Amino acid sequence: MTRTVIESKTKTVVIGFDEPFCVIGERINPTGRKKLAAELEQGDFSTVERDALEQVACGATVLDVNSGAVFSNKMAEDPRYADNNFVEPPLMRELITRIQGLVDVPLCIDSSVPGALQNGLEAAEGRPLLNSVTGEEERLEIVLPLVKKYNVPVVAISNDDTGISEDPEVRFAVAKKIVERAADHGIKPEDIVVDPLVMPIGAMSTAGQQVFTLVRRLREELGVNTTCGASNISFGLPNRHGINGAFLPMAIAAGMTSAIMNPVRPQEMEAIRAANFLMGNDPNGSAWIKHCKMMEAVDKGETTFADAAAEASKSSTGGRRGGGRSRRRAEG
Amino acid sequence: MTRTVIESKTKTVVIGFDEPFCVIGERINPTGRKKLAAELEQGDFSTVERDALEQVACGATVLDVNSGAVFSNKMAEDPRYADNNFVEPPLMRELITRIQGLVDVPLCIDSSVPGALQNGLEAAEGRPLLNSVTGEEERLEIVLPLVKKYNVPVVAISNDDTGISEDPEVRFAVAKKIVERAADHGIKPEDIVVDPLVMPIGAMSTAGQQVFTLVRRLREELGVNTTCGASNISFGLPNRHGINGAFLPMAIAAGMTSAIMNPVRPQEMEAIRAANFLMGNDPNGSAWIKHCKMMEAVDKGETTFADAAAEASKSSTGGRRGGGRSRRRAEG
Repeated sequence: MTRTVIESKTKTVVIGFDEPFCVIGERINPTGRKKLAAELEQGDFSTVERDALEQVACGATVLDVNSGAVFSNKMAEDPRYADNNFVEPPLMRELITRIQGLVDVPLCIDSSVPGALQNGLEAAEGRPLLNSVTGEEERLEIVLPLVKKYNVPVVAISNDDTGISEDPEVRFAVAKKIVERAADHGIKPEDIVVDPLVMPIGAMSTAGQQVFTLVRRLREELGVNTTCGASNISFGLPNRHGINGAFLPMAIAAGMTSAIMNPVRPQEMEAIRAANFLMGNDPNGSAWIKHCKMMEAVDKGETTFADAAAEASKSSTGGRRGGGRSRRRAEG
Repeated sequence: MTRTVIESKTKTVVIGFDEPFCVIGERINPTGRKKLAAELEQGDFSTVERDALEQVACGATVLDVNSGAVFSNKMAEDPRYADNNFVEPPLMRELITRIQGLVDVPLCIDSSVPGALQNGLEAAEGRPLLNSVTGEEERLEIVLPLVKKYNVPVVAISNDDTGISEDPEVRFAVAKKIVERAADHGIKPEDIVVDPLVMPIGAMSTAGQQVFTLVRRLREELGVNTTCGASNISFGLPNRHGINGAFLPMAIAAGMTSAIMNPVRPQEMEAIRAANFLMGNDPNGSAWIKHCKMMEAVDKGETTFADAAAEASKSSTGGRRGGGRSRRRAEG
């Protein structure tokens, strides 16, 4: 049985075929968030801290930490800031240090910059997940030695020097190549989490079936765990949460074991909790029942998912005075 | 490719691996509905008629018609009414005649009483689905000749004279036996729609995986289409629609091609429409986009799913004066 072990200082998360689906929170990522990038440029980590707490409360068991910020103002003053090899390494260290001071879940170190990966690996306690290696030759040669040196698992994205193929056979072959090259470095398949690449269903009608077939093959033929950027599937469509909320259970039924996604979304998280139960990975449905109780006030419009989740996590960990009262309220 | 063809006088529905999931509306069934049974006893078909229209508007492409009513008052006056062989055959004929006068979808004739199946087959126009045969010897001997004589497809439920097995291997073997016995009668596998039996996940933690595995085997090894009573999966649990809404896409991803279910449920129907899209059975997502537009007013709390669906179906078929106006409203 393939078990990918990820650790913080105090917590262990296992990605595996017989484990609850691993939700890797995607929000700490300035790449697509200009406002967050601007805050980070000013040394303001308040959004990062809020996102860390909220995502964990809502059910992320691993947090992705992406350092891909563009510091436009500093760049105008100092040309070195135009180079991400200059910006990202210290930013990654700072992000990792702050986040693991605030929450106890394992982290996923996410950057295209080797120096940022290196700094993240040095700063992270436990056994973080590295994000990512691809089938590109240069990337393989840089990332796999880091994976080996730090003995960490890695996300392997199935594109290579020719780009992202629309042919799932090619994407499978790229994944296989990465697993083989990793083996050459002494890295086991259980430490490779393959992202078969999810295309938007609105642009490619076979996108769903491609992923389901690839996930099954990756599991059966290569014995690896899998992940994906789940929300890609619904890009450009109305009611994206409706598409995502069906895609995730289908991918889980096909054998997908984790996703990099926004956990502050009730529809997607409900779908995942139901899917865990249906896959036999929620004994007695206790996580499902707890989730439903927590959602009662949200469904009545009395609070938000994030607030209800934060309240529920406070009362369940007892990390707050008056926890007894709030626990009663959450169960009422 | 296995294609189960069901027809009304004017419409053809194909259950198949490359077809949108076939939603068989379950509501016309007095077995579990005392109020409906009492209405039928008084010759009042208003609920049946409303249920027929509503289910079709909401997305059922086949309607199950179950005649299993208990006529308690008549029974007190005339002991013949204690026998369902007396009650059901004329009731089935009446139900079928009225429903096919009102809606144009194919019907599924559902009874444990042979005379009711026979009357339903005589009354139904086109090529109805017969519900059901089991692996019980007596049932096989009664139902398969009807299936052959009327050249109709049949639902095959995988229990036998020993009851319902909790062992999925036994349920598969029962299904296989039914398919083989049907072949002895000259009935092809494409005219057998197997119900592998869905157990409640709250009572049996392997219930989901059993169904997913069975559906895949039934498809790959026996080449048959499949159906199920979908809501059984969530029996006894909180937020049943959340469980059903994840179960259906997972079953569809595993290869399930139809379900007998309540289509007047927005969460389940949204999940199915998303799953059709993700399986490549909604070209360009046009059904998905239409569904989302229809749901806009529902999500704002301005109307119910059933009413919005009825309004949308009126405007799309033009079966109503002022259809042009309502079409604009539905798309607004």
